Amino acid sequence: MRVVKVPLGDRGYPIFLGSGLLSRLGTHCRRLGLGTRCAVITDRNVARHYGQATGRSLALAGFDPALVTVPAGETAKNLRTVEKCYDRLAAHRLERRSFVVALGGGVVGDLAGFVAATYLRGVGFVQVPTTLLAQVDSSVGGKVGVNLAAGKNLVGAFYQPRLVLADLDTLRTLPDRELRAGTAEIIKYGVIYDAALFRRLERDLLKLLRRDPGVLAAVVARCCEIKADVVGRDETESGLRAILNFGHTIGHALEAISRYGRFLHGEAIAIGQVAAARLSAQLTGLPEPDVERVRTLFHRAGLPTEIRLNARQRHRLSAAMRLDKKVQGGEVRFVLAERVGRVVTGRAVPETLIDQVLTGR
Amino acid sequence: MRVVKVPLGDRGYPIFLGSGLLSRLGTHCRRLGLGTRCAVITDRNVARHYGQATGRSLALAGFDPALVTVPAGETAKNLRTVEKCYDRLAAHRLERRSFVVALGGGVVGDLAGFVAATYLRGVGFVQVPTTLLAQVDSSVGGKVGVNLAAGKNLVGAFYQPRLVLADLDTLRTLPDRELRAGTAEIIKYGVIYDAALFRRLERDLLKLLRRDPGVLAAVVARCCEIKADVVGRDETESGLRAILNFGHTIGHALEAISRYGRFLHGEAIAIGQVAAARLSAQLTGLPEPDVERVRTLFHRAGLPTEIRLNARQRHRLSAAMRLDKKVQGGEVRFVLAERVGRVVTGRAVPETLIDQVLTGR
Repeated sequence: MRVVKVPLGDRGYPIFLGSGLLSRLGTHCRRLGLGTRCAVITDRNVARHYGQATGRSLALAGFDPALVTVPAGETAKNLRTVEKCYDRLAAHRLERRSFVVALGGGVVGDLAGFVAATYLRGVGFVQVPTTLLAQVDSSVGGKVGVNLAAGKNLVGAFYQPRLVLADLDTLRTLPDRELRAGTAEIIKYGVIYDAALFRRLERDLLKLLRRDPGVLAAVVARCCEIKADVVGRDETESGLRAILNFGHTIGHALEAISRYGRFLHGEAIAIGQVAAARLSAQLTGLPEPDVERVRTLFHRAGLPTEIRLNARQRHRLSAAMRLDKKVQGGEVRFVLAERVGRVVTGRAVPETLIDQVLTGR
Repeated sequence: MRVVKVPLGDRGYPIFLGSGLLSRLGTHCRRLGLGTRCAVITDRNVARHYGQATGRSLALAGFDPALVTVPAGETAKNLRTVEKCYDRLAAHRLERRSFVVALGGGVVGDLAGFVAATYLRGVGFVQVPTTLLAQVDSSVGGKVGVNLAAGKNLVGAFYQPRLVLADLDTLRTLPDRELRAGTAEIIKYGVIYDAALFRRLERDLLKLLRRDPGVLAAVVARCCEIKADVVGRDETESGLRAILNFGHTIGHALEAISRYGRFLHGEAIAIGQVAAARLSAQLTGLPEPDVERVRTLFHRAGLPTEIRLNARQRHRLSAAMRLDKKVQGGEVRFVLAERVGRVVTGRAVPETLIDQVLTGR
């Protein structure tokens, strides 16, 4: 087992990474000094594989868990699902010292985290990510929330978990499409922060996609280190943390205009990152060969790198981008790359360029 | 104009109290360094009286306000109304540096505050309380949230406003029933914290109910001072702040079991406080003459002091109390008085006593 610390003072917490960790969840929670009642929020797919083991681990450690199951997928990440969760927490009589465990991928983590942040003005929160994307990215850093019809993650909070427990064994049951989607955030860390990680991915991508335990363990740990470092230096995104949004302005807008049903998050930001790389070539000097390296890596991961939109879709995309949380004074701001491993934030981009880079012309 | 400071370090803020302040709202907001777009959330009754003046003051100071009107009354303080507000903020393209103004009573303040706390993970928040209850209590201290069917204020956050602007002139249009309800929180400050304030109310209650400007100004200011002091010492209710819940465990439960439609909050906590005073006589030594002083003062204010429940209602009341946020280890905790001006928190109360004190036997 590896431990990565997220350095946030009295809100700091450990990320436990390794094999066979799920059965130890209860023991780790025990050390947090929380109350007895708790709720495990998960989706139907994950519940089938890991619901019972999670409940058992908590019960053996003396907790009284309720299993709350929500529909799988991004379309369920909305306020109606949140309200159903609240009602279940009330029925199980959660108290202020109680806690919520998010068992699942990014959707479950974001949703359960928002429920934990707001029920009784905040109860304890524990992340148990079971997808590659959640383990390397969304379970760490305290961004929680849900979507509106108007835009992705428009409602939420900064609310840190008390611990993150990433059992790599849970990746064995992950559908292949989800595994590929998870690599989109991993590639992102290479582009924005760590050229050596990017080179390693160019070398070891196939092993990663074949779920080689050694490669998975090393890569997931490195991503958590990067995320912990960035979040530790800028918890609420007043500066540095914005680099994590590389490819996300376009990605979120694509998810919103397709009503969260067509793309997995990782797929949408794959398109977004390739587009951002192309914008970077025009605006921040990213060398063309590096644009090609970025595009190739996403392509080899089996992720989409382009999209062709009709006039109506283009119009809706640009409306959705104007609702991005990074908009300032009505202007959409982008994260762009100067080279692989280094990005700049807050760049205004002429709207005419965006459609051009999306279609790969 | 008086200014009371809420001492919360970099989250501290001023409460401006006085006559003719509403027209200066824009100027005060200007000093906060916020973005141009904003939203004024208010209810239909308040919008009719003060919506235009509020919008004008903001526009004259260079802001671009959208007026968002919600139905009046506690029954609207729910997640469906919250979602409608989010949609309006998205349509008006609020940004992270934008802000939300709560113009109205406690319901509007709690609701708009929760919207501000969660939209884009938090935008600026300004309180413009227009009821006596909101001016002396709910607009100060950062407790925001909405009701669930299961219980009052079960969902929310601690989210401090950037400023509170209480224009005493707005009390002129306040319906008499709401004015009386507001005195319930004022009497509470006397019981929990300030015996001199309690004696003043015994003396000046009629002037207060006749809206005597001098008495109103002095009393509202004193209540804000007390609230600011308590919140400044315990923002998130880990200890002292719990004294503010005197009468609220029973009061909230009464609101919940009557589906938020029968009692104003002040009416429900009037019953709750008289019941808590009677419990205090039995459990914490509050002298019987003081119980009578408390009951008499609420009675003179035209507020209910007793309620008779049938068996089914008693059952539902006790279920609602078990969902109170102060429950610990399944046990309901009460704030009880030792004498007028001093209370203790965290007292367990045998359930059999509660029905007895509610009916005044």
